[in-house]
Amino acid sequence: MSRHDEAELVFCPLGGVGEIGMNFALYGFGPSHARQWIVVDCGVTFPDPTLPGVDLVLPDTRFIEENVKDLQGIVITHAHEDHYGALLDIWPRLKKRVWMTPFAAGLLEAKRRMDGGPDIPVQIYHAGERFSVGPFDIEALAVTHSIPEPVSLAIRTPAGTVIHTGDWKIDPAPTIGPKTDEARFRAIGDEGVVALICDSTNALREGDSPSEQAVGVGIKEVIDASPGRVAVTTFSSNIGRIRSVAEAARDSGRQVLVLGTSLKRAINVATELGYMDGVPEFISEEDYGYIPRDNLVILCTGSQGESRAALAKLARDEMRNVALSPGDTVIYSSRMIPGNEKAILEIKNLLIEQGIKIVEDGDALVHVSGHPRRNELLKMYEWTRPRVLVPVHGEAAHLVAQGSLGAQAGIPEIAQVRNGDMIRLAPGVAEIIDQVPFGRVFKDGRIVGSEDEVGVRDRRKLSFAGHVAVNVVLDDRYDISGDLDLVAIGVAKKDAKGELLEELMVDAAIGAVDSIPRVRRKDLDLVAEAVRRAVRSSANEAWGKKPIVTVFITR
Amino acid sequence: MSRHDEAELVFCPLGGVGEIGMNFALYGFGPSHARQWIVVDCGVTFPDPTLPGVDLVLPDTRFIEENVKDLQGIVITHAHEDHYGALLDIWPRLKKRVWMTPFAAGLLEAKRRMDGGPDIPVQIYHAGERFSVGPFDIEALAVTHSIPEPVSLAIRTPAGTVIHTGDWKIDPAPTIGPKTDEARFRAIGDEGVVALICDSTNALREGDSPSEQAVGVGIKEVIDASPGRVAVTTFSSNIGRIRSVAEAARDSGRQVLVLGTSLKRAINVATELGYMDGVPEFISEEDYGYIPRDNLVILCTGSQGESRAALAKLARDEMRNVALSPGDTVIYSSRMIPGNEKAILEIKNLLIEQGIKIVEDGDALVHVSGHPRRNELLKMYEWTRPRVLVPVHGEAAHLVAQGSLGAQAGIPEIAQVRNGDMIRLAPGVAEIIDQVPFGRVFKDGRIVGSEDEVGVRDRRKLSFAGHVAVNVVLDDRYDISGDLDLVAIGVAKKDAKGELLEELMVDAAIGAVDSIPRVRRKDLDLVAEAVRRAVRSSANEAWGKKPIVTVFITR
Repeated sequence: MSRHDEAELVFCPLGGVGEIGMNFALYGFGPSHARQWIVVDCGVTFPDPTLPGVDLVLPDTRFIEENVKDLQGIVITHAHEDHYGALLDIWPRLKKRVWMTPFAAGLLEAKRRMDGGPDIPVQIYHAGERFSVGPFDIEALAVTHSIPEPVSLAIRTPAGTVIHTGDWKIDPAPTIGPKTDEARFRAIGDEGVVALICDSTNALREGDSPSEQAVGVGIKEVIDASPGRVAVTTFSSNIGRIRSVAEAARDSGRQVLVLGTSLKRAINVATELGYMDGVPEFISEEDYGYIPRDNLVILCTGSQGESRAALAKLARDEMRNVALSPGDTVIYSSRMIPGNEKAILEIKNLLIEQGIKIVEDGDALVHVSGHPRRNELLKMYEWTRPRVLVPVHGEAAHLVAQGSLGAQAGIPEIAQVRNGDMIRLAPGVAEIIDQVPFGRVFKDGRIVGSEDEVGVRDRRKLSFAGHVAVNVVLDDRYDISGDLDLVAIGVAKKDAKGELLEELMVDAAIGAVDSIPRVRRKDLDLVAEAVRRAVRSSANEAWGKKPIVTVFITR
Repeated sequence: MSRHDEAELVFCPLGGVGEIGMNFALYGFGPSHARQWIVVDCGVTFPDPTLPGVDLVLPDTRFIEENVKDLQGIVITHAHEDHYGALLDIWPRLKKRVWMTPFAAGLLEAKRRMDGGPDIPVQIYHAGERFSVGPFDIEALAVTHSIPEPVSLAIRTPAGTVIHTGDWKIDPAPTIGPKTDEARFRAIGDEGVVALICDSTNALREGDSPSEQAVGVGIKEVIDASPGRVAVTTFSSNIGRIRSVAEAARDSGRQVLVLGTSLKRAINVATELGYMDGVPEFISEEDYGYIPRDNLVILCTGSQGESRAALAKLARDEMRNVALSPGDTVIYSSRMIPGNEKAILEIKNLLIEQGIKIVEDGDALVHVSGHPRRNELLKMYEWTRPRVLVPVHGEAAHLVAQGSLGAQAGIPEIAQVRNGDMIRLAPGVAEIIDQVPFGRVFKDGRIVGSEDEVGVRDRRKLSFAGHVAVNVVLDDRYDISGDLDLVAIGVAKKDAKGELLEELMVDAAIGAVDSIPRVRRKDLDLVAEAVRRAVRSSANEAWGKKPIVTVFITR
């Protein structure tokens, strides 16, 4: 059998490696001319200020679209936005069955009901189960993370077994769901593991993560020490944390009010699946006025400084029924996602100005990350004993740190891959064998496309220097007829001497037409270009910036 | 004498309190109907992404412009942008003499030569000197900070003495300039101090600041341990730090290359004033190729992730003569200014991807803040024994923290003021007696003005949904003549079905005209408004967003 015909096991991340979020990975099996594929996870990331008006950033799926006939299905490890948030927008391009746990499927359906989207054929699986997707024999292994029902995937193929960890940690005392299934990881390790594709997020942090239960105790201590209301903000899908807060409130004799759409949606899904069993019912906003301050805990959205979330509204005192007052406490049971620091700080300052106390990670044990620290990574290596370690989920610093750790731990092959690398994991030594197209597309309103397709490239220019539209009407002698119409949007109004820029630009446009010999004005494109240049340079002279200029010439 | 005629000493911050940067404060003396004023500091802050295209944020000087005949002068405490950066733009509105130290005057002049600006009459003063500005008898007191020649101001008036600290700390071993002048602070304390207007930036940090000399040692240790090139990025005006780096390099047998315009400018000014005496000459970019890797230190701009600064160019390997390679080290001898975290992270990841090691504050003692921690604040209280403490320079959390600390230390009156509060410090108990207009204006290109005046409000809208310009030409029967011209900028190109949005919008515009009875089309405003609405709603239907629409109607 020639090499060409050999069945290979390949891994190809198209997002989430060397960047935060937007996890989207392919596994392939078969000879290179007839590879069968699965997609593992289909996440989004959020736009930064260089993408004004863009709602979401999605992985570019060009490569797998071209191979869609050989795509066997999509497997989702858990329902965080960076692992499943692109499904509704990407699925119509792939149209394959999606394997998910009940909680992920419930959240997806809740989102679809609210925002619209395709009716996706979902195959439910549970941690501990084993199922086939094409040539891939997949076992879902229970892990712990900051959401219900996270799993790692053991992906068995005739060429060997890969473990794709997804997001995980070893929580010795989770508040919902089973512990990380050490026994199964060890058993699969005994069978032999070709490669461990492993979460690197906390590879720079020493030691072991504290448990979710310890965070519950930390939150209860803060609540007990607080004289007034306590508002707790956390990530909506962290149902374990929400339970911790609800139980701490109950044990402190307080009732709980929930504020924020995404939090309510996640709680509804969790409730249907029994994850809120035993927690006292939450009170409604209308009951708020009847609850003494020291008997209340408010669970709210807005930990990332989102300006329309519940906590921001509380900070600006914009809520109809609910308000905070001096002496109240706000607990940030969350981390700052990079890029959100300033927005978070602004909300905190608004709260502090009102005499509200802030408690955050570092002040007390009120948050813990859902990703493995270095000791936990070492345990995973020991359980699974892979031949190859492929660090994923993290930025360059994290990937490099996990790579070094794995090498120190004696893993024979460390494979540093980046988005678009196709790496052959078996047979033979791991090797990057191809580069495939990857990148980002943008959801903007209802449209998904490139920067140009959604218009954001031009909007970036508009946001710098605005737009001027000019309408030049020429009479039959090619002189300007009547007044020249000019509309400037997003341009400075006056120059330093107080002259109106619109007037200066109109004068420049008229001057440009006048300066063209009448016989040459028949060339309307030439007139338009002369006006465009004159208007831009007049703006530049008065303002120091050149707007985009659109010229209409009418005869 | 009625209260109205009593000479009062008042303080009125118009920027820099409850926010970062943009320090701008007034002191007034005299009866309320005939108050004499001075301005202390005139700083900028930098725009966040909600201000696209804006270059600088300046204090709104309306109030002092209205009272400009009673303004006696402007005193600058030091040459950081947040304390003096608005001078060139604000001065033409005030036109009064400016008191500055030689380093501040040198930097101002260097900036004016590069960027242009008014010829400002400057009166030079030195730490230790005493000078009069109208009724204010001012003594400049040496302090330490992260720039040459920082001072606190003791402002004596017949109603009593105020100490305005500016930015300061107690550095036991600065690398340039004198130590904080404890003896003079104590002597003025003995005379009696009405109020201490005091830097709050580090009021949440326990203990004392490490010295600049200790940072020099820390940097030398990192350099000694680095096998390859070492690049150090720091704030341009931190001449003490630049000296520390240059001396560490010299002691490690390395030569220094300086990259970045603002760094070179600050070093030139410092050199003229003798602050670089004894430091070996820096090498030029052309010499770079001849210096062995382990004999080189690169001092560069870009600590805040600025995309056009030297470090970003090094990270992207865009420099003609200079490059970093695997095994080199980059030291961030700086802090992250809030809002810049993500940009800084992106540069760091680019460097790490290339095998370059990052050393930052926390990894080693390579940076120290120039602001007083809690022990230093307590010392200042003890030296000056003020009747009133007014926390300034900081966000709400810092101001509140310093207020509590001052109260614990036994200061009788703690005055929490915010921008626009006018507080009477003497005679009598400190009291807020007025609110004056304050705010922000924006420098955008060459223009300074409000959000509307510089066009940024519209640009924010443009950046969300773009602009469409339509030209409708009606013939003498009020039918559309020829093709309808429509130009869409920053709008999605196609709808979900692949239809061109421009075509959909043209059809909507034509439909809108057709739907108006011919007799009513004489009302061109009505036609324009119908077209505008039709185009917006057609975009909204196809895209989910409504662009700004400009309609020209030509007959």
